Amino acid sequence: MKELKPPPLLLLGPGPSNVSYRVLRAMSTPLLGHMDPRFMEIMDEVCQLLRDTFQTQNKMTFPVSGTGSAGMEAALVNVLEPGDKAVIGVNGVFGARMADVAGRCGAQVITVEAPWGQPLDGQQMLEAMRANPGAKLCGVVMAETSTGVLQPLQELGAFLKGTEALFLVDTVTALGGVNVEVDNWGIDVCYSGTQKCLSVPPGLAPITFSPKAMQVLAKRQSKVQSWYLDLTLLQKYWGSDRLYHHTAPISMIYGLCEGLRIIAEEGLANRCARHSAAAAYLARGLADMGFGFYAAEGYRLPSLTCVFPPAGWDVEAVRKQLLKDYDIEVGAGLGAVAGKVWRIGLMGENACVQKVNVLLGALKDFA
Amino acid sequence: MKELKPPPLLLLGPGPSNVSYRVLRAMSTPLLGHMDPRFMEIMDEVCQLLRDTFQTQNKMTFPVSGTGSAGMEAALVNVLEPGDKAVIGVNGVFGARMADVAGRCGAQVITVEAPWGQPLDGQQMLEAMRANPGAKLCGVVMAETSTGVLQPLQELGAFLKGTEALFLVDTVTALGGVNVEVDNWGIDVCYSGTQKCLSVPPGLAPITFSPKAMQVLAKRQSKVQSWYLDLTLLQKYWGSDRLYHHTAPISMIYGLCEGLRIIAEEGLANRCARHSAAAAYLARGLADMGFGFYAAEGYRLPSLTCVFPPAGWDVEAVRKQLLKDYDIEVGAGLGAVAGKVWRIGLMGENACVQKVNVLLGALKDFA
Repeated sequence: MKELKPPPLLLLGPGPSNVSYRVLRAMSTPLLGHMDPRFMEIMDEVCQLLRDTFQTQNKMTFPVSGTGSAGMEAALVNVLEPGDKAVIGVNGVFGARMADVAGRCGAQVITVEAPWGQPLDGQQMLEAMRANPGAKLCGVVMAETSTGVLQPLQELGAFLKGTEALFLVDTVTALGGVNVEVDNWGIDVCYSGTQKCLSVPPGLAPITFSPKAMQVLAKRQSKVQSWYLDLTLLQKYWGSDRLYHHTAPISMIYGLCEGLRIIAEEGLANRCARHSAAAAYLARGLADMGFGFYAAEGYRLPSLTCVFPPAGWDVEAVRKQLLKDYDIEVGAGLGAVAGKVWRIGLMGENACVQKVNVLLGALKDFA
Repeated sequence: MKELKPPPLLLLGPGPSNVSYRVLRAMSTPLLGHMDPRFMEIMDEVCQLLRDTFQTQNKMTFPVSGTGSAGMEAALVNVLEPGDKAVIGVNGVFGARMADVAGRCGAQVITVEAPWGQPLDGQQMLEAMRANPGAKLCGVVMAETSTGVLQPLQELGAFLKGTEALFLVDTVTALGGVNVEVDNWGIDVCYSGTQKCLSVPPGLAPITFSPKAMQVLAKRQSKVQSWYLDLTLLQKYWGSDRLYHHTAPISMIYGLCEGLRIIAEEGLANRCARHSAAAAYLARGLADMGFGFYAAEGYRLPSLTCVFPPAGWDVEAVRKQLLKDYDIEVGAGLGAVAGKVWRIGLMGENACVQKVNVLLGALKDFA
């Protein structure tokens, strides 16, 4: 059988990003049992480091045993019951996915749409909430991975704080590289994925629930439709009871722990500044070469830059050649802009000038 | 921060089992992107090796991106729709969990019960199916991890082959160590977990769907309630379309690939024989020391032996001391036999006489 020896790739797509040797080393650590007191110490450390990264005091903060999409599903299935109203912003693939998942929970979904590449109109979101009194939640994607749009959250969060509705935010392509202030911004349910700015392999979805969200959970009339993601059960394992629910993905939690320690060592503010600086450097380089930007100015994610290559470039052919001949992965477009844009991620380990120059240097060969 | 350096534990609980250095090495391999053609080759290899291990030709055979319990949920949510009848055998925690999950899918659940420690009565299962014509499925746990009971499947499978109903089987604590013949036994939906006899860290749930099960899926009237586990979407990523669904847990798939290669090298029949021999050796040693067996004779799992320690032993204190002073993990009892039994796993790497003797030697200190 073929040996497992991937080339030394530079992963500049929409995730996974490259992973520190320290995280890879942690992934290869021999196992502890999922009920071992020493593993529980690691669980506690992971939860505390996640709280620091989410900038929250929420007790119920832990990694869901699945990828970012499982985090989205965990967020929605726990707070929605059949017949609930959910207002969801849709300006890309992941907003649409959120609406789809909410619908599968039996919710009545009210979408507020914006063109791809544009942020959601905060005023329109507020109006939708006012027009739907009793709506259980308002859901938005902070970092829309299909377009590279960064959604402002603070105004909406401040409004929702004064209502019964929960503020549910997707930070998959933000957490650990773009400032996310769960408590200050009034976010009630917030989830992410490990393979983006956290620079850990895909497989876990950090998630946090505010006390307001936990009250909604406690008042449910029906069982959570997913046993696997049922927070009423999960909290007994991740909380102080330590009651067995499912076997935790131990190696992934080792890796996440090490990845979060790296973030704590660097400092979250430093790390976010590094992401911004790298993105600005990339944007200048690409603009000089004639690339166009998909996301509206002022609303561009540091972690993911979506661009139209210069006229005349064979978008998909060059992307494939970058992977094949240069060992550089950039992401293809999704949906309406498939074959028209690239999605260039500078996340975690990769958010630095050196990595940007590896890409810019390669692109000059096609100019 | 504390260095991550667990002691060299012998994991003889109900899983996770110990993992080969080769699997740990694979887990630390740098990442490929989840849309990289080279990763897709690895996906194909994993699927084929899983088919070999499940002894099936089923095209739709792949690892679910979650632990064994996510496999159970994936099995049920894809074939059940609200109002469907499901006949489920319950003689332990995992049969009860299956019934719970089926209920959360909106199914009308008919349980057939047997006392813990006893197998389900095949005749009673047949009668329940006959009494519920049109039942969508018949679900049983082959390897009941709470009791150590091995459930015979062939008679029930042969009967169900001639009906419209699907045969759904939990092989979490069997696959890769106890013979599982999906095609020959007429199993339609079969799932497992990686951290048991496959000797891979927890985090993936191998699953396989027969063409009969895929027809049921294709005829669904409603959306699968879980987006994350929706096979109508997942088959486009794991199948030839290679359409993005969620970011696959790459490192876990590396680890599973290496674990399955180890199984292929040993040969599945040899591996199952090794599990049986180790279990017989353990049983003799324990019987000599006055241990009693929880599972009925003739229905004992090779992979997991549940025992009552000799009278006078402080069951929980000795178990904790084994972990603390001997670096040996054995599992605590669940449910009605919590504090009364141990669950001793001999799975994958650990199914050998040498490991059994490490345990028996330690136990002699308490005799």
